[in-house]
Parts: sequence; C-alpha cells; structure tokens
Amino acid sequence: MPLPRRLVLTAALAFPALARARDTIPPEARPVPARLLPVPGTVSPELQRLIAAPYPVGWNVTPTDAAGWRQVQVASSAAIEPHMAALAASLRVRVEPSSIAGVPVFIVTPETLPAANRDRLLLHLHGGGYVLYPGLVGVGEAMLMASHGGFSCVSVDYRMPPDHPFPAALNDAIAVWRALTAERDPRRMAIFGSSAGGGLTLATLLRARQDDLPFPAAIAPGTPWCDLTDAGDSLRANAYVDNVLVAPTGWLGGAARLYAAERDLADPLISPIFGDFTGFPPAILTSGTRDLLLSDTVRAHRKLRRAGVTAALQVFEGQSHAQFISPGVPETAEAFGEIAGFLGRHLA
Amino acid sequence: MPLPRRLVLTAALAFPALARARDTIPPEARPVPARLLPVPGTVSPELQRLIAAPYPVGWNVTPTDAAGWRQVQVASSAAIEPHMAALAASLRVRVEPSSIAGVPVFIVTPETLPAANRDRLLLHLHGGGYVLYPGLVGVGEAMLMASHGGFSCVSVDYRMPPDHPFPAALNDAIAVWRALTAERDPRRMAIFGSSAGGGLTLATLLRARQDDLPFPAAIAPGTPWCDLTDAGDSLRANAYVDNVLVAPTGWLGGAARLYAAERDLADPLISPIFGDFTGFPPAILTSGTRDLLLSDTVRAHRKLRRAGVTAALQVFEGQSHAQFISPGVPETAEAFGEIAGFLGRHLA
Repeated sequence: MPLPRRLVLTAALAFPALARARDTIPPEARPVPARLLPVPGTVSPELQRLIAAPYPVGWNVTPTDAAGWRQVQVASSAAIEPHMAALAASLRVRVEPSSIAGVPVFIVTPETLPAANRDRLLLHLHGGGYVLYPGLVGVGEAMLMASHGGFSCVSVDYRMPPDHPFPAALNDAIAVWRALTAERDPRRMAIFGSSAGGGLTLATLLRARQDDLPFPAAIAPGTPWCDLTDAGDSLRANAYVDNVLVAPTGWLGGAARLYAAERDLADPLISPIFGDFTGFPPAILTSGTRDLLLSDTVRAHRKLRRAGVTAALQVFEGQSHAQFISPGVPETAEAFGEIAGFLGRHLA
Repeated sequence: MPLPRRLVLTAALAFPALARARDTIPPEARPVPARLLPVPGTVSPELQRLIAAPYPVGWNVTPTDAAGWRQVQVASSAAIEPHMAALAASLRVRVEPSSIAGVPVFIVTPETLPAANRDRLLLHLHGGGYVLYPGLVGVGEAMLMASHGGFSCVSVDYRMPPDHPFPAALNDAIAVWRALTAERDPRRMAIFGSSAGGGLTLATLLRARQDDLPFPAAIAPGTPWCDLTDAGDSLRANAYVDNVLVAPTGWLGGAARLYAAERDLADPLISPIFGDFTGFPPAILTSGTRDLLLSDTVRAHRKLRRAGVTAALQVFEGQSHAQFISPGVPETAEAFGEIAGFLGRHLA
C-alpha cells in the first residue's frame, strides 16, 4: 500500500522533535471543516435531550441600547419565572426573600438540613452575564445546592446593567459578605456561583483581600466567566458546539462591554484571571467538554494550582456552558453532590 | 431594536424549563459550520508553536495489512529515535535497557534522585495506539517523569500488533507488575502512562484484581484511551480541532481493530471504561481542551469519582492529544510537576 514519504503520525506522543522542527511555520489559524455533531450516547437520556436542543432563540441578538437590554432581561426572566415555585417544591427547598446590608437576597433552606451543615452557610452569586436573571429566577442554582448538597444558601440579588454596571454587582456581593463575616465564622462559609457568578466569586475574593475581609473556607466557581477580554481558546474551539452560549459573537460579548462600561476589561476585578490567587481557599471548578468557557475554567484551575491552592476540577461529558445546572438531570445531582462533598471537607 | 418574539437566551443557565420543553425534539446531529481556529494567546510561546503545527503527515492513512502497519511503525520510530539520546542528556536522566520477568524494559533514573523517592518506583506504560513506539522511542514520557518528577521509572517495552495483538501488551505489563510486587512494597509504587498507555494502566489494574495481585499506591493515566468503541463525544466535538490525532477516522480506529483482533472492543480489558473501578488507588488524569480523547479522560475521571476513588483531573489550555508530553514546553514541566506531586502525596 502507498504511504506518505515523510510519515510522522503522532510523533508528539513520544517526542516532539518533529513538531519542534515545525517551529519555522508561523502560527496561523487552522481551518476546521463543517461537520455534523451527533448527540453522544455516553451521557444520561435526560442530558441527551439537553444536548440535542437547538441553539437558544436570541443567542446572537446583542441589544444596542439600554432599552434593548432591559427587554432581553424581562423576556428571559418571563420565560423562567413561572417554573420557579414548582422547582422549589420538587427540590424540597424553602426560598424566602430577605435583605442583608441593604442588599436584596434570597434565603434558600433545604427541607432537611444535615446536622453537620447546621452552622454552615453558602453565599451564592448567580450567573447570567451580569445582565440576566434578577430576582427569583437567579436562585435556581442555590436551590439545587440546597437540595442536592444539603446546605443553607444566601443568594445575592445583586444590581446589574444597564442601570448598574461594574462595580455595583461586586459592591453588593462584598457588602453581603462583609455583613455575614461580622456575625458568622468565615471558616464555616463558602462562596459559589457559575458563569458570571463564578467570575464574581473570584472577584469577590480579590476584593475581600483589598478590604481586609476574611476569605471563606472554600469556593466553588462553576465555569467561571473570569476573562472578559475574549481570550480563551474554547471560545473558538467550542463555538457552535456549545448550545447554550453558542459563540463569543453572541450577546455575551455585548454583555461584557455593558458590564465593564468604560473600564478596562482586563481589570482583575472584572476579569479575575488577571488577579493574584495566592492564599485563596480550596476551590472546586466545574465545566463541560462542550463548554464555551471550558478554557476560562481550566485556566483558572491551573492558575490556582500554580499559586499552590488546593483546587479540584470536574468536567462533564458532552455538556455545554453551565449545563450542570439542569434540574432533573442525573449529572446535575452528581455535580452538586461532588461540589457539596468538597465544601463539606473544607468547611469547619 | 427588533428582538425575536420568543426570546429564551441562556435560559438553561438559571433553569432548564425551556430546554426541557424541547423534549419533543428528537435527538439529532448538530451542524457545526466551518471556521478558522486561531492559535490562542493564553499559552506559552513554546506551546503556541505546537498548537500552530499542521496535522501530522499520515494521520489519515490506515494500513490495510500487517506489512503496512510494520511500515508505519518503522517510519514513525525512525523519525523520533535520532533525538532520544539528546533528550535524555538534556533532561539529565540515565536510560538503561534491561529485562524483568522476560519482558524487555528500560530503567530510567534521574541524575539526582530526591531522598524521598529513593525507595519508590514508577511503572511506565507508553502510548502509541498499541501499535507505535517500540523500544527506546516509547520511553520519552518516562524520561520527562524522571526529570520533572524526580522518580525512577521502569518503562515496559510491551509486545504489539501486528505480530502480537491483545492480550500480549497486557500480559507483558502484568508480568512486570507481578515481578515488581514480589520484591518491592506496592505501596511505594505507582503505574502511569498516556493514551494507549493510560488505557493499559487502567486495564492492568482490572487484570491485577483478577490475578489477586496488589494495587499500586496511585496511578496517573494521561488522556487514557479507555474506550476503543468510538463512543466519546470529544471524538466528534474536537475532530479537526486536535492536531495530533486529528479525527477518529484516522489511523487510530484501525489501530483499535488491529489491537483487539477478533475480540469485543467493549471487553473491559480492552476498553477499561467498561470495567469496575471500585477500590482503585488514587488517580490523577491529564488532558487538554482540544484533546480528541478529552471525553475518555473526563468519563474515566467521573467513573472513578462515582466509585468513591480519590481522583484529580487537570486539563491544559489549547492542548491536543497528549501534548503535555512535549519536552521544552513550560506546560510540560507544570503537568509532570503536578502528577509527581500527587504521586508523592499518595506513595508510602
């Protein structure tokens, strides 16, 4: 049979001499052909249905003014809000609106609170690109944590653009954290949240250090949006593979600029990947193989590890952005069980 | 501005009611458009050069007979072998051919062996789709571990197809492991290897249990080829994104059939993802965001965790299959430093 004259195959597997010999080739973009991506058989049937879903209507619509963003916020909330009461009931959690340090919050409590978690509390920061899910619709992840993890949670209903860009959300998060640490032992508390909530979790720690506030005993940033400068490789590699965010050319890029207003997107309090993670408490990070923010997640994980921080990573097969926050999916219980177990090992 | 009438955006982020409402849509393949994938700026310049490299010549050539496979084996080795002595010298490791239980091995020793590792030993099983890298060219990963991790290693030069299909490689690995455990404390030993070597690491544990041999104190399967049935989602999602294996339609599929000969590819000793991981020792798994076997890696990680095994996962930004085994790349020292640190914590 005919073989190429210069056969190298996966030479890099054993030794990259040949790949290094390619140093003379200038870095260039790789053309990736169009293809059909089937639904994998390696996940639960429930997750298969989520993976099979088409791109969300509106993913590539970026509002151009404040009224447009408000319309998106209202429309996306309206689609979710009618389901929240049933979700709380099915998860057997109680959700009560309250206020801490003048910031509106929701207190989420599991019907049965394990004895070990009676004096523990989790601070939850919801996702949604710093623009979506105000009010009750942002509390879903805290409900899942309360139900699958057995923790009481305080979910912060932080202010958002277009009316309140950076640093309003961070100010609200830190105000609640400051108030909680004044009356509770921070070693019995953790901070968690996904997507923008994961980035905000990391930013809150950077800000806590600035403000001489104690760190929590652990954090759980899920697929953290920790780099708003459009830099992670998976933004391109998983573009059109991820069926939640779909591509960086969608609304998310507009949300980054809206949130930062005139500030530098590389400000560590906006993009915490550029901050100093030294001395951070133990962290567990969660993502999926199709996640547009897989790179943000693994870069944060590597940066934590390089800083000597205890940091665990879990990546779920076939999942797009933040799909581990999906009620009724077995992998969701697994993800939150793992996160809760990690927090349980590190909280006093 | 005009917005879609039914705007759902990333509803799944907060609550998947809308995604679940799509249950009526039958699972179907997603068309992913063609695109240009740039080299990311979020990795070292050395790694950027590896990421920028074109697909390996011959990746899509699958030999159709034994002579063709031998030709591939010889050609890929010939391209690598001239560099091995210089690699050993630059890494300051000594490599000596030897034999254990009648199986040819290489003893790899760092120039300076840390005192803590003097009575410890790692068993290395090389990668290459169970077909490539016989002899010295398979030892590169063990050299990196000896150099960056400070461990003495025994690298098994196991038999391979076309002359010796399954279970020859496994028989050789278990023969060496049996001999080592007869004269050394298994609590001071670990088993590691990547790609086929990662799959073989897991299969060796399944076989050790069958044969009533002790487990090692830890394992480090790098991007383990643990499912030869062509099932993981990243085989498709990362097709043509990975520039090492490129796509499952390349030589790897042929290698799977060649290795298994007439056996069922789902045999747990061939595809250990279908085996029972209960009681396995602590494991650290390594992959990259562009890895064609990212799914094999994270599925193995999840399965270990579900079995209650201590298991760490690290995923490197922008890396294709097994690219963490690349001398002269900062991320390689980081990966092996992390693996060595994990092993050091779990070995007696």
